Amino acid sequence: MKPTMTRIETVMDSVRMKIASRAYLPGTRLPSVRAQATAMGLSVSTVVEAYERLCAEEVIYSRQGSGFYVAGPIAPLALSEIGPRLEREVDPLWISRQSLESDASVLKPGCGWLPTHWMYEAGMRRALRTIARADRSLLTDYAPPQGLPALRQFLARRMGATAIEASPEQILLTDSGTQAIDLICRFFLQPGDAVLVDDPCYFNFHALLRAHRVNAVGVPFTPTGPDLTAFEAALRQHAPRLYITNSGIHNPTGAALSSVTAHRLLTLAEGTDLVIIEDDIFADFESHPAPRLAALDGLSRVIHMGSFSKTISASMRCGYIAAPSRWVDGLTDLKIATQFGGGQLASAVLLAALTDSGYRKHMATIRLRLAQGMDHCLGGLGKIGITPWLAPQAGMFVWCRLPKGADAAKIASACLRLGVVLAPGNAFSQSQGAGDFLRFNVAQCMEDTDNRMLAVLAQVLADI
Amino acid sequence: MKPTMTRIETVMDSVRMKIASRAYLPGTRLPSVRAQATAMGLSVSTVVEAYERLCAEEVIYSRQGSGFYVAGPIAPLALSEIGPRLEREVDPLWISRQSLESDASVLKPGCGWLPTHWMYEAGMRRALRTIARADRSLLTDYAPPQGLPALRQFLARRMGATAIEASPEQILLTDSGTQAIDLICRFFLQPGDAVLVDDPCYFNFHALLRAHRVNAVGVPFTPTGPDLTAFEAALRQHAPRLYITNSGIHNPTGAALSSVTAHRLLTLAEGTDLVIIEDDIFADFESHPAPRLAALDGLSRVIHMGSFSKTISASMRCGYIAAPSRWVDGLTDLKIATQFGGGQLASAVLLAALTDSGYRKHMATIRLRLAQGMDHCLGGLGKIGITPWLAPQAGMFVWCRLPKGADAAKIASACLRLGVVLAPGNAFSQSQGAGDFLRFNVAQCMEDTDNRMLAVLAQVLADI
Repeated sequence: MKPTMTRIETVMDSVRMKIASRAYLPGTRLPSVRAQATAMGLSVSTVVEAYERLCAEEVIYSRQGSGFYVAGPIAPLALSEIGPRLEREVDPLWISRQSLESDASVLKPGCGWLPTHWMYEAGMRRALRTIARADRSLLTDYAPPQGLPALRQFLARRMGATAIEASPEQILLTDSGTQAIDLICRFFLQPGDAVLVDDPCYFNFHALLRAHRVNAVGVPFTPTGPDLTAFEAALRQHAPRLYITNSGIHNPTGAALSSVTAHRLLTLAEGTDLVIIEDDIFADFESHPAPRLAALDGLSRVIHMGSFSKTISASMRCGYIAAPSRWVDGLTDLKIATQFGGGQLASAVLLAALTDSGYRKHMATIRLRLAQGMDHCLGGLGKIGITPWLAPQAGMFVWCRLPKGADAAKIASACLRLGVVLAPGNAFSQSQGAGDFLRFNVAQCMEDTDNRMLAVLAQVLADI
Repeated sequence: MKPTMTRIETVMDSVRMKIASRAYLPGTRLPSVRAQATAMGLSVSTVVEAYERLCAEEVIYSRQGSGFYVAGPIAPLALSEIGPRLEREVDPLWISRQSLESDASVLKPGCGWLPTHWMYEAGMRRALRTIARADRSLLTDYAPPQGLPALRQFLARRMGATAIEASPEQILLTDSGTQAIDLICRFFLQPGDAVLVDDPCYFNFHALLRAHRVNAVGVPFTPTGPDLTAFEAALRQHAPRLYITNSGIHNPTGAALSSVTAHRLLTLAEGTDLVIIEDDIFADFESHPAPRLAALDGLSRVIHMGSFSKTISASMRCGYIAAPSRWVDGLTDLKIATQFGGGQLASAVLLAALTDSGYRKHMATIRLRLAQGMDHCLGGLGKIGITPWLAPQAGMFVWCRLPKGADAAKIASACLRLGVVLAPGNAFSQSQGAGDFLRFNVAQCMEDTDNRMLAVLAQVLADI
């Protein structure tokens, strides 16, 4: 029988998986072709072809007369293999890839950002034209180590609006918000350290913390912030080095920290070594600013950070950190070592867009559309039995419970086959206790003008 | 006696240093004001003022009636304290900061990049205007996980010119060249691993490897590449995980790898777990391409990377990695976790600049100017007894020996006070065996139209 493609791939996958799981270490001799064929109930020619392809891929190599061996070197870091084994549907890296890779025909209610045409396109075009005429140095030179001074000055003033007192000297620009968090993590964390996260929290925090090989500890999130009893217990039990949270609008729940929770949380942290990263990426979606930990704390143990990827452009990368003065030099050294000087151009384009008189108007429109969309979205979901955990005051996310404890991962998997990308709850949950939740993006739901998403969801819910 | 600023600072520095060196751990009670004053031979009021300022800086805190204590949390990563203690003048981070921070009136023969007006300014302006009219998605959306497909396709074709066979699927875009190397290091390295570097090598490799807490092992560099006897011995003795090098034009020596060294080096690596990072950032400065390890190796254990910060713009950040296929997925996962999607805009601007018909002409002019400048620069340095280790065939760097074994660090320090930033040899040297070398940047030397740099150097050499 002629080997079929599928059979060959089965053998190849089996070998690859054994290598990934360290069942076959580098230098291990593979089962002989004959033994493998017998074991898998396949023909010898199928196994020969699979082994030869794996040789071509350099996954294995052959030694004349002696068989096939697993190629070195020792397997490098495989994020998907660190920590508890997750179903693909709730693996944060897999969800990110789905959202980043899928084409325009796919509906993405599970996506973490606004549809393209909601972004500040006009401002970006104006800013690019302006910067095309800027001083030569801005176009071609490295930035000073902490980043473009004019943007740092603007950000310092802007933070004043949420009562965060930061001088431009306390601000450090990075290549993105994710990199800002990563830089802070590298500054403070050693493998094995404990880090508190909200449960649920933004799923890429889980992926990032895996890359740091630390012990992520979930603290249940309530409609006004983390559960303080659980927070206090986690502080005592784990002596965590960091706590990462969103204070403005919380991802994925859409909740906002209350003043009393913020104050009590900081009081609990007193006398501990805890450093808090406050990710403020959704600041410009707020109608009424929630309290900021960095404002109450006076940038003492709280590091405030954010970016403009969710409002102006995700294509022009720039993040920022406002840190206690005593850490700025060390963070800057680490930035130079790992990113070198950084550029000025992205900062200059974003500054031009931010200070363009159109930006405030643009965001006012976005907030209004989201508020209208939220009602519409919740109405539609309600009809098929999907209910919000909390009706968010602002932002693009709503955290919803499925009817009758349906399995969100299975539903996400079924919907993906029908061209709908969802964000199942357990991708956000350290305890894996959100198996019947989905995060919906109101703006992305509004793209679904012919209610295809609702129809697909209703059908899949009915089938399960 | 009224406390003077200098005395107060002496106390503050003494406390800060004891905290940095872990002699005072967080929570430690400081010596009483009186004891400290006696010990340092200073007045009580000087110590009181110093402690109060340290309290204001939150380095220490006071407990009523009980004294002053070192503030927590445990000190985060301080790169300047990892590895052997270096003089400030040869500390890679300090040199980077000098070059990145100093103003236009300072001469920078020690700088690692071209003067502003040598960069591809016209191309950048044209590219920005072009991209200002591009599709909406390019301006505002995240890139797919591996980066803008059009730039990856272009880079794959471009690598063909140096016989490197890489498909666009093997290419990953990053936010800069430094980040490309950092991503690869994070993928392969664990703290304590051995990493081979050329001695001398680009000084930021030292800073980057410190951030990874690995054991950097220097291999002496010869005019045709690393010393193979030493390379083989280091392979046996240290079982290094990585070797980082520049194959095209070597930084700081300006040497180029020979075919025979390249081939023998790869032969030595056979049967080991060694992964090689080939940093090709100076590719476009070459008149005749040197052999590339990635070409000989067929992207099997060699990872090829680069950026356009040295030729087009350092302000628009974008780097690339061409890697063996089996590592692309893992590297992409790590990129998503630590940098998320990455943008498209910087890639699109650089692609427009690279494919602009003016770029080849621009680089031909740069190469010509550098060749002329090299002669001129070596002539001037020769007159004051500074001689090249090797006359580079191309590039902006020349690695020079000082007369009579003069101390390059001391000379750099004296010249800095006179407005000239130099790059002393030991910043590049793992063994600290290049104490009488300086790296000169030919293009930056050409900025010195009134020979001020030569006059300052001659004076400082005469004084020492």
